[in-house]
Amino acid sequence: MRPGRLEAFSDGVIAIIITIMVLEMKVPHGDRATDLMPLAPTFLSYVLSFVYVGIYWNNHHHMMHATTTVTGAILWANLHLLFWLSLFPFATGWMGENHFSPLPTALYGLVLLMAAIAYYMLQQTIIRSQGPDSILKKAIGRDWKGKLSPVLYISAILTTLLTPWISEAIFVAAALIWLIPDRRIENTLTRKEG
Amino acid sequence: MRPGRLEAFSDGVIAIIITIMVLEMKVPHGDRATDLMPLAPTFLSYVLSFVYVGIYWNNHHHMMHATTTVTGAILWANLHLLFWLSLFPFATGWMGENHFSPLPTALYGLVLLMAAIAYYMLQQTIIRSQGPDSILKKAIGRDWKGKLSPVLYISAILTTLLTPWISEAIFVAAALIWLIPDRRIENTLTRKEG
Amino acid sequence: MRPGRLEAFSDGVIAIIITIMVLEMKVPHGDRATDLMPLAPTFLSYVLSFVYVGIYWNNHHHMMHATTTVTGAILWANLHLLFWLSLFPFATGWMGENHFSPLPTALYGLVLLMAAIAYYMLQQTIIRSQGPDSILKKAIGRDWKGKLSPVLYISAILTTLLTPWISEAIFVAAALIWLIPDRRIENTLTRKEG
Amino acid sequence: MRPGRLEAFSDGVIAIIITIMVLEMKVPHGDRATDLMPLAPTFLSYVLSFVYVGIYWNNHHHMMHATTTVTGAILWANLHLLFWLSLFPFATGWMGENHFSPLPTALYGLVLLMAAIAYYMLQQTIIRSQGPDSILKKAIGRDWKGKLSPVLYISAILTTLLTPWISEAIFVAAALIWLIPDRRIENTLTRKEG
Repeated sequence: MRPGRLEAFSDGVIAIIITIMVLEMKVPHGDRATDLMPLAPTFLSYVLSFVYVGIYWNNHHHMMHATTTVTGAILWANLHLLFWLSLFPFATGWMGENHFSPLPTALYGLVLLMAAIAYYMLQQTIIRSQGPDSILKKAIGRDWKGKLSPVLYISAILTTLLTPWISEAIFVAAALIWLIPDRRIENTLTRKEG
Repeated sequence: MRPGRLEAFSDGVIAIIITIMVLEMKVPHGDRATDLMPLAPTFLSYVLSFVYVGIYWNNHHHMMHATTTVTGAILWANLHLLFWLSLFPFATGWMGENHFSPLPTALYGLVLLMAAIAYYMLQQTIIRSQGPDSILKKAIGRDWKGKLSPVLYISAILTTLLTPWISEAIFVAAALIWLIPDRRIENTLTRKEG
Repeated sequence: MRPGRLEAFSDGVIAIIITIMVLEMKVPHGDRATDLMPLAPTFLSYVLSFVYVGIYWNNHHHMMHATTTVTGAILWANLHLLFWLSLFPFATGWMGENHFSPLPTALYGLVLLMAAIAYYMLQQTIIRSQGPDSILKKAIGRDWKGKLSPVLYISAILTTLLTPWISEAIFVAAALIWLIPDRRIENTLTRKEG
Repeated sequence: MRPGRLEAFSDGVIAIIITIMVLEMKVPHGDRATDLMPLAPTFLSYVLSFVYVGIYWNNHHHMMHATTTVTGAILWANLHLLFWLSLFPFATGWMGENHFSPLPTALYGLVLLMAAIAYYMLQQTIIRSQGPDSILKKAIGRDWKGKLSPVLYISAILTTLLTPWISEAIFVAAALIWLIPDRRIENTLTRKEG
């Protein structure tokens, strides 16, 4: 199997996930502003998840670009990642409908955590298959974002015990870390260590 | 990333949006004409949105055709456009179910407006990335349709304060402007100015 | 636009239509055979529509294969066809849920009729764009199936006034005409005329 | 038609099936653990079906890779397979919602059985079209997994008469047989027979 096929299939699944998430935002029956307002949390959680799925799509593309052959292990590690991504609509809907209450927020964090772990496992599976001169290993560098994210998600899950608003702030921060082009941050980190 | 990949992913998302919109038209329980009739507004709003999504798909394709490389900024500007397009099913369903009442019509106009702005931003991001000899800049010309549309959508939002029927007429007119091959109109406009 | 792109987008929409149709078959709440039985008509109408969408996908592919360039008119004629195909899930669900009662059966026939007309219009638009030596014109030959189908659908709509079961039989027959490889039938028809 | 097109369409349908299955897991209204718990069986049945669809996607890809031309018979045999796969979301949802009770479990087994038969028919149709030197025939070898699976599914359907838990165990076992790389098992089997 060429990486192109794996990417096309994953793109298809990700395109569907990103689009059906919006179906959790049910059309309200009344036509006044007071009928629309209760949907605000669902809308905000949709925006957050849309950005996360966008980040995964983007990163997944770059990873596939550095992938040369597809083994059976890579294929199943990829399906494992898609599995956790497929739970985004459910976790997003539950968190939104319950206005960011503690347990749904913790479950959302858990799905983010599992997706991050699945992504890491896929990455390692590809690197292992490429041997010592792995292109992907060079491409990801020190991968500080990939290592920081799970820590943030675990913190967010734990802070739901205090208040879910800290958790939401952590989710937003973790997304921004991936969104902002990071040369400057990485340079800073390197200099500090150097 | 090649523009081809970005286009394939966008095509996938657009294909799903255009198709799930029809799911807002819920199958009625009875089997008589009087059970079907209440769906007429939902059907009409579906037709309108189908045409709009078709226009976006068409224009997006032409834009991608004039795109040479995909930067990170282009990628996120594209996802931003897809985000607003993904709200079409919701806005269409709410407007249809409430028989074109003022607020849902205004929200529909807002989603159209935001999609138009997102499209414009994507266009500008691509042009900026291509430098002074931008192919896309030449291809779009004076882009009078792209500049007129947001004005029409804002007018439509405002006229919901009077009556939503004027707003609907504006939505239809704005769609027709994109549908009708425009050489003659453009020539006329050029001659007037010239 | 290359025909390949138009076909890929159409394939995407058709793949989604064929799959979301099954969502009209709602999971029953109970777990006994008597809970499942009422779904039999929905299941049968799903099978019928699955076959029809399969036929359209197949024919559409062959048509695209004989298409050399894509004009604006072809693009919109194609979206027009996809529009009517997108109503299959609704028409199928309504007919199934109402156990093939007259009006839903007539609406199903109407959607089949409109899709057939849209297909014919698309075909003619492509042929016109190809000029006198149209490859597609040669490929479709006398197109007796394409000409017979609308007649059958109209008959099916009219016979719902008597009993919808004749209509259903006509729908099945019209599908079989497309399914069965037709060299022998065509030969027979040619011989009769010759 | 090239096998590539058939595969792309099938990939699209499979990507949608695998993703809409998650929609059967309805977002609960409350936000406590006791609201989430009743979804556990639905979640487990989703995991099982996700793995099965993943296996089909994987095997289908390998089959297409060994396919040289696409005849009309192959095309319809492929749609026949997609038809049974499209019933996975329904069967999965019914089994999950009813907490693996006997009849839904038997229906799930029936859908698995029919998909396995459809897969086998597609395989045979391709082999027949390739003549005596069929690449696919060589590629599948003795196909002991393909022959064992239907037997397992039939056993699972029958054991629902005793207890559905044996059936579930058989479903899991049948999936594992496909997941585990099988060189060793095959060698063992060959040695025994040799």
